Amino acid sequence: MNLKQMVGIEAASYVKQDMIVGLGTGSTAYYFIEELGRRVKEEHLQIQGVPTSIASREQASKLGIPIRTIDDVPYVDLVVDGADEISADFQGIKGGGAALLFEKIVASYAKEIIWIVDQSKMVDTLGKFPLPVEVVPYGAKQLFRLFSEKGYNPSFRLTADGQLLTTDCNHNIIDLHLTAIEHPHQLNEELNQLVGVVEHGLFLDMVKTVIVGQDNGPKTILVPPRKIK
Amino acid sequence: MNLKQMVGIEAASYVKQDMIVGLGTGSTAYYFIEELGRRVKEEHLQIQGVPTSIASREQASKLGIPIRTIDDVPYVDLVVDGADEISADFQGIKGGGAALLFEKIVASYAKEIIWIVDQSKMVDTLGKFPLPVEVVPYGAKQLFRLFSEKGYNPSFRLTADGQLLTTDCNHNIIDLHLTAIEHPHQLNEELNQLVGVVEHGLFLDMVKTVIVGQDNGPKTILVPPRKIK
Repeated sequence: MNLKQMVGIEAASYVKQDMIVGLGTGSTAYYFIEELGRRVKEEHLQIQGVPTSIASREQASKLGIPIRTIDDVPYVDLVVDGADEISADFQGIKGGGAALLFEKIVASYAKEIIWIVDQSKMVDTLGKFPLPVEVVPYGAKQLFRLFSEKGYNPSFRLTADGQLLTTDCNHNIIDLHLTAIEHPHQLNEELNQLVGVVEHGLFLDMVKTVIVGQDNGPKTILVPPRKIK
Repeated sequence: MNLKQMVGIEAASYVKQDMIVGLGTGSTAYYFIEELGRRVKEEHLQIQGVPTSIASREQASKLGIPIRTIDDVPYVDLVVDGADEISADFQGIKGGGAALLFEKIVASYAKEIIWIVDQSKMVDTLGKFPLPVEVVPYGAKQLFRLFSEKGYNPSFRLTADGQLLTTDCNHNIIDLHLTAIEHPHQLNEELNQLVGVVEHGLFLDMVKTVIVGQDNGPKTILVPPRKIK
């Protein structure tokens, strides 16, 4: 069993009967959804799944997990999702899989958030992983120029065959190669104020539980209360 | 000549040879674009037009105004656009025509902004005109609920035939019926921080010149420097 599978299965044990569950996106959330599907089938677990991407929706649907959109439900009991980086004070960067907008929307209405990662994602300071910024296509080159002038080392996200990537919501992604983000809250506010920025990959003060896949087993970390949203 | 036509023609006199000109959207900007078209044809005025909507692009294109997108130009010399309300301290609400996102993007890269309105748009305090908020469709009902809880009296913008309106960028619009916006900067920040909000109709500290159509002629107001972006 690889580390991603280990934490995916561990996180699925947090899901209880009748929960509305946010289904993350990416290679780690994949294993969580697979295990949920197994529990639905073998243990007759009754849940509703709220996917955060077309890919997760299709996976869950094939497994027989009942699917709802975020607009069909009053709230989400629990979201389980991966992360690309988690800092020592439990702030995160997400969006490597280009699903950050729907992930953040679903997370906004969740009572509890669990992030599942392998140990390579735990860092001291955020920023080695490029920060994804989801932008409106009209004016995207102007934003790119602005980010360049600020020294944020932007690059447009491309698909495997070299085309400009388009998100599930028809936006583009500009990745900021920042190396180190010393003041994530400040950057969060700065990006939110920019016209043309739809959302970005800084997920701050959100996560309550982190499950880290280590060689000797999953390690569960309860985030200190001051960091809970 | 009606008041909208009067200010449209007046604003066109601010356009000089070789300018890159932002072309607003709506019933007042319409007359500005018409007059620009006349000057291009009859006076051989050479300009490039950056439209803020599909409608304005089509109008300008038919008139023979060379069209660029905001990503084709280094900046915009001058934007001329309408407004739905302008307060006593020259803050504005825009978006009645559902073009606020592209209008705000183009305005962000403009050296100078002129708003043209008939006198009915000049108010003491913003807010009698519903404030448009452009939102990502996924999660729009959750945002609607949130706005309701805050007492913002939201309504979804519908088309003439009663369908949910979709903007040029495939988003929806929620109008907030606030009656009076006492602290526009505070509301601006609050809305910008909300996940799922792409943009909103508060245009603050942007306009440099306002041309008001009055029964006795156009009145040009230079906005005091502290209010210039």
